[in-house]
Amino acid sequence: MSTAATDAAPSAQRSFSEHVAGGQIQFFRLPSLALDAGPIEADAVLLGVPYDGGVTYLPGARLGPYHVRRASAVVHGHHPIHRVDVFSRLRVVDGGNVMAPPFHAAGMREAVRAAVGRVVGAGAAPVLVGGDHSITLPALRAVAATHGPVALVHVDAHLDTSDGAPWGEPHHHGTPIRHALVEGLVAPAQLWQLGLRGAWKDEHEADLVDAYGGRRFAVDRIDEDGIAAVMAEVRAGVGERPVYLSFDIDAVDPAFAPGTGTAVAGGLSSREALQLVRGLAGLQLCGMDLVEVAPPMDHAEITSLLAAHLVYEGLAVLACRSRP
Amino acid sequence: MSTAATDAAPSAQRSFSEHVAGGQIQFFRLPSLALDAGPIEADAVLLGVPYDGGVTYLPGARLGPYHVRRASAVVHGHHPIHRVDVFSRLRVVDGGNVMAPPFHAAGMREAVRAAVGRVVGAGAAPVLVGGDHSITLPALRAVAATHGPVALVHVDAHLDTSDGAPWGEPHHHGTPIRHALVEGLVAPAQLWQLGLRGAWKDEHEADLVDAYGGRRFAVDRIDEDGIAAVMAEVRAGVGERPVYLSFDIDAVDPAFAPGTGTAVAGGLSSREALQLVRGLAGLQLCGMDLVEVAPPMDHAEITSLLAAHLVYEGLAVLACRSRP
Amino acid sequence: MSTAATDAAPSAQRSFSEHVAGGQIQFFRLPSLALDAGPIEADAVLLGVPYDGGVTYLPGARLGPYHVRRASAVVHGHHPIHRVDVFSRLRVVDGGNVMAPPFHAAGMREAVRAAVGRVVGAGAAPVLVGGDHSITLPALRAVAATHGPVALVHVDAHLDTSDGAPWGEPHHHGTPIRHALVEGLVAPAQLWQLGLRGAWKDEHEADLVDAYGGRRFAVDRIDEDGIAAVMAEVRAGVGERPVYLSFDIDAVDPAFAPGTGTAVAGGLSSREALQLVRGLAGLQLCGMDLVEVAPPMDHAEITSLLAAHLVYEGLAVLACRSRP
Amino acid sequence: MSTAATDAAPSAQRSFSEHVAGGQIQFFRLPSLALDAGPIEADAVLLGVPYDGGVTYLPGARLGPYHVRRASAVVHGHHPIHRVDVFSRLRVVDGGNVMAPPFHAAGMREAVRAAVGRVVGAGAAPVLVGGDHSITLPALRAVAATHGPVALVHVDAHLDTSDGAPWGEPHHHGTPIRHALVEGLVAPAQLWQLGLRGAWKDEHEADLVDAYGGRRFAVDRIDEDGIAAVMAEVRAGVGERPVYLSFDIDAVDPAFAPGTGTAVAGGLSSREALQLVRGLAGLQLCGMDLVEVAPPMDHAEITSLLAAHLVYEGLAVLACRSRP
Amino acid sequence: MSTAATDAAPSAQRSFSEHVAGGQIQFFRLPSLALDAGPIEADAVLLGVPYDGGVTYLPGARLGPYHVRRASAVVHGHHPIHRVDVFSRLRVVDGGNVMAPPFHAAGMREAVRAAVGRVVGAGAAPVLVGGDHSITLPALRAVAATHGPVALVHVDAHLDTSDGAPWGEPHHHGTPIRHALVEGLVAPAQLWQLGLRGAWKDEHEADLVDAYGGRRFAVDRIDEDGIAAVMAEVRAGVGERPVYLSFDIDAVDPAFAPGTGTAVAGGLSSREALQLVRGLAGLQLCGMDLVEVAPPMDHAEITSLLAAHLVYEGLAVLACRSRP
Amino acid sequence: MSTAATDAAPSAQRSFSEHVAGGQIQFFRLPSLALDAGPIEADAVLLGVPYDGGVTYLPGARLGPYHVRRASAVVHGHHPIHRVDVFSRLRVVDGGNVMAPPFHAAGMREAVRAAVGRVVGAGAAPVLVGGDHSITLPALRAVAATHGPVALVHVDAHLDTSDGAPWGEPHHHGTPIRHALVEGLVAPAQLWQLGLRGAWKDEHEADLVDAYGGRRFAVDRIDEDGIAAVMAEVRAGVGERPVYLSFDIDAVDPAFAPGTGTAVAGGLSSREALQLVRGLAGLQLCGMDLVEVAPPMDHAEITSLLAAHLVYEGLAVLACRSRP
Repeated sequence: MSTAATDAAPSAQRSFSEHVAGGQIQFFRLPSLALDAGPIEADAVLLGVPYDGGVTYLPGARLGPYHVRRASAVVHGHHPIHRVDVFSRLRVVDGGNVMAPPFHAAGMREAVRAAVGRVVGAGAAPVLVGGDHSITLPALRAVAATHGPVALVHVDAHLDTSDGAPWGEPHHHGTPIRHALVEGLVAPAQLWQLGLRGAWKDEHEADLVDAYGGRRFAVDRIDEDGIAAVMAEVRAGVGERPVYLSFDIDAVDPAFAPGTGTAVAGGLSSREALQLVRGLAGLQLCGMDLVEVAPPMDHAEITSLLAAHLVYEGLAVLACRSRP
Repeated sequence: MSTAATDAAPSAQRSFSEHVAGGQIQFFRLPSLALDAGPIEADAVLLGVPYDGGVTYLPGARLGPYHVRRASAVVHGHHPIHRVDVFSRLRVVDGGNVMAPPFHAAGMREAVRAAVGRVVGAGAAPVLVGGDHSITLPALRAVAATHGPVALVHVDAHLDTSDGAPWGEPHHHGTPIRHALVEGLVAPAQLWQLGLRGAWKDEHEADLVDAYGGRRFAVDRIDEDGIAAVMAEVRAGVGERPVYLSFDIDAVDPAFAPGTGTAVAGGLSSREALQLVRGLAGLQLCGMDLVEVAPPMDHAEITSLLAAHLVYEGLAVLACRSRP
Repeated sequence: MSTAATDAAPSAQRSFSEHVAGGQIQFFRLPSLALDAGPIEADAVLLGVPYDGGVTYLPGARLGPYHVRRASAVVHGHHPIHRVDVFSRLRVVDGGNVMAPPFHAAGMREAVRAAVGRVVGAGAAPVLVGGDHSITLPALRAVAATHGPVALVHVDAHLDTSDGAPWGEPHHHGTPIRHALVEGLVAPAQLWQLGLRGAWKDEHEADLVDAYGGRRFAVDRIDEDGIAAVMAEVRAGVGERPVYLSFDIDAVDPAFAPGTGTAVAGGLSSREALQLVRGLAGLQLCGMDLVEVAPPMDHAEITSLLAAHLVYEGLAVLACRSRP
Repeated sequence: MSTAATDAAPSAQRSFSEHVAGGQIQFFRLPSLALDAGPIEADAVLLGVPYDGGVTYLPGARLGPYHVRRASAVVHGHHPIHRVDVFSRLRVVDGGNVMAPPFHAAGMREAVRAAVGRVVGAGAAPVLVGGDHSITLPALRAVAATHGPVALVHVDAHLDTSDGAPWGEPHHHGTPIRHALVEGLVAPAQLWQLGLRGAWKDEHEADLVDAYGGRRFAVDRIDEDGIAAVMAEVRAGVGERPVYLSFDIDAVDPAFAPGTGTAVAGGLSSREALQLVRGLAGLQLCGMDLVEVAPPMDHAEITSLLAAHLVYEGLAVLACRSRP
Repeated sequence: MSTAATDAAPSAQRSFSEHVAGGQIQFFRLPSLALDAGPIEADAVLLGVPYDGGVTYLPGARLGPYHVRRASAVVHGHHPIHRVDVFSRLRVVDGGNVMAPPFHAAGMREAVRAAVGRVVGAGAAPVLVGGDHSITLPALRAVAATHGPVALVHVDAHLDTSDGAPWGEPHHHGTPIRHALVEGLVAPAQLWQLGLRGAWKDEHEADLVDAYGGRRFAVDRIDEDGIAAVMAEVRAGVGERPVYLSFDIDAVDPAFAPGTGTAVAGGLSSREALQLVRGLAGLQLCGMDLVEVAPPMDHAEITSLLAAHLVYEGLAVLACRSRP
Repeated sequence: MSTAATDAAPSAQRSFSEHVAGGQIQFFRLPSLALDAGPIEADAVLLGVPYDGGVTYLPGARLGPYHVRRASAVVHGHHPIHRVDVFSRLRVVDGGNVMAPPFHAAGMREAVRAAVGRVVGAGAAPVLVGGDHSITLPALRAVAATHGPVALVHVDAHLDTSDGAPWGEPHHHGTPIRHALVEGLVAPAQLWQLGLRGAWKDEHEADLVDAYGGRRFAVDRIDEDGIAAVMAEVRAGVGERPVYLSFDIDAVDPAFAPGTGTAVAGGLSSREALQLVRGLAGLQLCGMDLVEVAPPMDHAEITSLLAAHLVYEGLAVLACRSRP
């Protein structure tokens, strides 16, 4: 018989809005932790952010945390390549969802900033599962508030440096990297973009990244050099700086990750994606997010499953670092 | 921020088998109750039974509790027709899942019998969500052990009185009604079958039901008389006896309930199905099950959604009875 | 162990084109019969016609026979309403598929005419499963060649009396009824159209039908009078004439039959459709077809399943007539 | 060869945001009209509103106009029941889409109000295809600005009178009727709600509607009386007042309309829905909207197809009124 | 407000057949051009050919132009690898669809030949989006009529050199390369086939290709050498000859391109496919087609999206050549 | 006209249970052979095993034989790489299905052992299509009974050496390799595992394999060395021993094989999988199975299609060995 302890008086329903985004299925079958229920004693805190109010094309990423949580149930703890048992080495908890209705962009940003700030403030690494890419900016703000400007490994098909002008809005899922650069959340020349591809609006699309000394590894470059060599270059360049990983699932080819809202043909394979995150081992990972999983476009949950494995690989990078 | 209290030491993963069938999303956003954690103070206990080891055709009903729980999140508490607030009138809890691997039919029967027995023993009504129809027999055994032979309202496209010979197995999802009759779990002439349709193997298919004085209301009969008249007849016939409702979702037409494993064309509409359960109001409902929801064949979760509403209607019948 | 006798020398593959449309899964688990292998000793012969070369919108009906055969496997033989065991009363066989590539309309017409002619010539009733509606014309030609002009019960959302001008082609799936009327295959005032609905190109859309004394029962008429009354009128009007049933699955509402190529909202329910065919009992059914099942648009095979039940109801009408 | 005239210098791409919501496939194959390109000479103007920023549960309604336009291509012009050729009697045009990004609720409201105001100001009837239900409020504001308070026929599974408190936002897709009542856009006792069903949060859910003299026809009422009787009552009650129809597709059962974001079991059939709109014939329809079609949850486009037929029925009501 | 100019008198519906295949959504958001409306001033003309009457297995390619047009909306103009802005360098227009009903193979061939002839005659490059592979033969006839025998880069899982005998028809989607060779449309030893795989009917399957000096690059060869080396060989072999690219999407693995009618396991990745077309840069591309996208088998539009990117890469090859 | 000979008296239906798993569509369009109808004159016998009673997570593999048979219809006989015509070189037959209900694990094991034993006893190679992985143990028992301990090439994402304790059952689809090792069915140090990946429960997961000298080639190893090098190592290590291939489709990445019940991200590509089997050429293959294809999770039949090609590659390995 599988049951949990009674958590309230009988028949006291939770609110619907709370439930829709609720963390009742914990990531990786891990224990829950209420962020506001006392001191956070953990090494890493998983947070869902069921928000897709920043999506300009196909919506659905608000359902990402629900489906990634479900898919993560099949993932065990021992990493046979790193030879580390992630959930024994680290104290990892599911901190539930950061709630914000889809029509409250500013509220979402404040809620994410506060939640991530609390996690970072407790010395733990925040691991966010979106939701769309607009959740990354407030997460980075909170991380940089503690760690200072970070190295940012940004895995994505797109540059995400739009100024938002075509939509008349400075904050949507195509703008977080612009703000992160302009606000100084990224250390100089420490933006690493991997998985880029597809046509640009014009020749100036990458000018901002170049101006900040960002390093761009388009898919054709990864194809030529191999993901191992690319990650070696990333590791060498990042060194001992705190590094934040922002992984937009659309970096992966639609064959492996159909469940996303702005897919682009010709992306990473699932193996390259896993090796990419695995290749961060040794670095001082201070936080990460996995965004843009849109289950309505998925089939057989393969995108959520890949996302769960990518998050696990990120946790394994944390575990490697904490080796005794 | 939506979180629950920490329920274990950090990073202590639950077992995978426990999780797959886990009750982490509570039915109707209700509180959880551990059946074995002390006295059961409730009027009704919802139980998932993620078992489909008795399915002879298309499997998948093991995923029923998971999806019905999810769909039930959109259902509120106040019933505007009965004018009763179900979850205020009754103490309803989610008792989690009754666990049994798909290859352990006997183990499933024992686990269901024990769990239902505990619920009935505490004076509460068991409300099971399957899983396949083979879960009904042990539930009825437990119910009859306390209440004596019951009136059985059996909603189904099939008679479910097979002797199991073609499969060489007396217990599968097409046999529970035979056993219930033969074991004396049903009061004399108190089997009420609604939703029957489709061709028979031979002219003797209904002989057993007829021998026990069962009343059969095929779909063409319901179509002619209307569901209201049929239910009036059922209510009059049952009277003050304890009545158990076993609702196989395949009683409903595949247009309204495509997510099931042995669909038959020409079934009930969703409205008829809801009116059918609603039409039990006034009777002394002592337990119910909703079985054979097979999510892999569903689309847009419409079968799970209908199932959740049918379970809610059953709970409302309980609430009507407990009116002050 | 389930096996069939070796039917050829080892490793002699059949041709691919033959296989794609092959009758290897027999309708209703019935025996196969080779039409050209000697005298046909049967009361009814099921024929698949995997041809959709006449489809003007969404194709896929070429896969109809394959999927309807599969779905028909779950249908048994005893009809509890008519109280007749269809497959005991009648000798029914699966005559395989009538082959024609999608780009050979004239070849399809000749092949269907020949096959149906052989069946009718042997005193058996042809039961065709399409394929698109353009298979009906050659079937009617063969039936009328033996039986003379027939009563035609035409169940469809559309009139199917187009002259083909918009497509520059007199024969496609929207034209068979025009040809049947003009060629005199239908007895005077013996066209019965049921299930019609939707907007017309102009006010003259039904002029041809009216000119031939056809009776039109649009869905709104069926809704008002009830299918029972409508069928009573049909039976009275047809009397003892030989009657042919042509059932286009798009007569049924897309909720119950999504798998078709030119769906129209607001159609028959599955129950009405089944009652419609059942309501032919007593008439002298001399042949039937079930067309326009397009599996690529189906889900959970519910359209194929309904189609299989409708064909079974047609066979039951034949069985009723042959009662001793 | 099917082509349109060159509309710009070669290779001048339109903006992406404009395109996503673009009206390039005109509703019902009708001509396009630029609202801002001069006087509007039309009797009815179809407008798409690809906005779903107000959705609290499953998003996707932003794709509604695209898919309903596509499905509407199969609908012809002559209405055989009303005996009127809709597109000959009326000048109907496709006015394109009213653009607003999903994160700009206030901007959407202003854009819809302005566009509808222009249409109404030109003496034409606005016919909106959403998009979510939050587009109705600004449409009603514009309509009432010209016509004064209207009779409002509101077809929906939900009351849509939430005060928005659970989401901290007074304007989302569950609130438009509250605002319409409070702002005086609805004439006294002229709110007619049809299709209501499902459980309520508490017993006060309908208090606001009742306070304004609204008439509620829940599905069980429609089931008992029949849609014809209900519509007769509506027509009698509305009389010669200008009437606006707001049709939320979730009034229809999920079997017939799975493609919506907040489905409720037990709704109207497609035939009832069509008869409902048809039953407005004779009234002075001054505008309508069809909202909440969410194509990602649809299959085989059956929801979009039904929506297209419902809009056509609305246009036919306009055509009946303009009979010479 | 997004609208287009009024293009006709109000309420003048276009014909349905014209609409189904209509070019109302322009490829890549480009302007439309009516081929028969005067001189063609363009460098490249995109043409849809919604014809699948030549398909021997699973149909649906008639919907290819519709879905590829839609998917192409997300593709921008600047090519960051070639460093060329395709739509600034070239005048590219959408020439609409070449219409032919599925049952008129000869009519399709004549219509395609005429349309392509007009484009080529105006000095522009034709870029066709099918439709099935039988559209390639008439396109090649028109191209060769102006340019003489061309180099033909044929990307496909199949040789497409069938003589049509098994189907009794010399022209279907498996025969175009045979005709092209036999009719002398391909320059000597200038057939380049890439992507071949799967079993053959017998050992003589490739004899015709070999007899004409065709070069075959099966997938295992591409796997060993890499697509870059293969394309270098192609470029060297083609030299300055006019080259036509015929890309059957089934050259790509079903994981990346499930939406096709005769899929074969083990094909190209999306990256290889894109690099293949990109690898033509420098050659004198005089026309191309992209065929066999069958949307009914697709999911999440990933096949149409890849097809749109492949067409874009072909346009980029044209743009590279026209560099000043 | 495509028909088969009459195989029984008219209207004698086969049993339903027999039919569901029936072999009526023969693999690769090959002839049928009744295993119990006399001596087996064949070089290889294909057997379906529609059993998924051993599945611990998502069921559906019972439908594998049906769908793989259908997909195999498009595969021809001549292997252009091995330059051998498989079905001319070998006598291959479809031996039908080995029947066992999902709830009779022991019965399944006995039936498979008996059927495979009969095939092996006749000097033919058994080729099984599952069904879940629990069918492999009885097949190996029968093979080893004749050939002695074999080399076992086990292609899988998982080790499949569970002791079954978490489920309280020593035999399910995660345990066959443990039993095969412990029962001595595998020759010393002749277990070759390819495709392994994903996290382990603990560090001891591979201890049993290591203890038996098994060789493990995880996906990261295959990625580094290439499948050709890995297979060369396998071939060298196996030498002239009889070798059995057990291919669990979940070794392949979910992008290429979504239709399986326990998918893991990051697997083999379809090309690697095909090359893997092809790389066994030269070895003495004495039997094989292809398991865990679960069609309910598949789309566009791509998993079944890949499975059919993999089985064909296995047959080609047999054909290579039998070269004169």
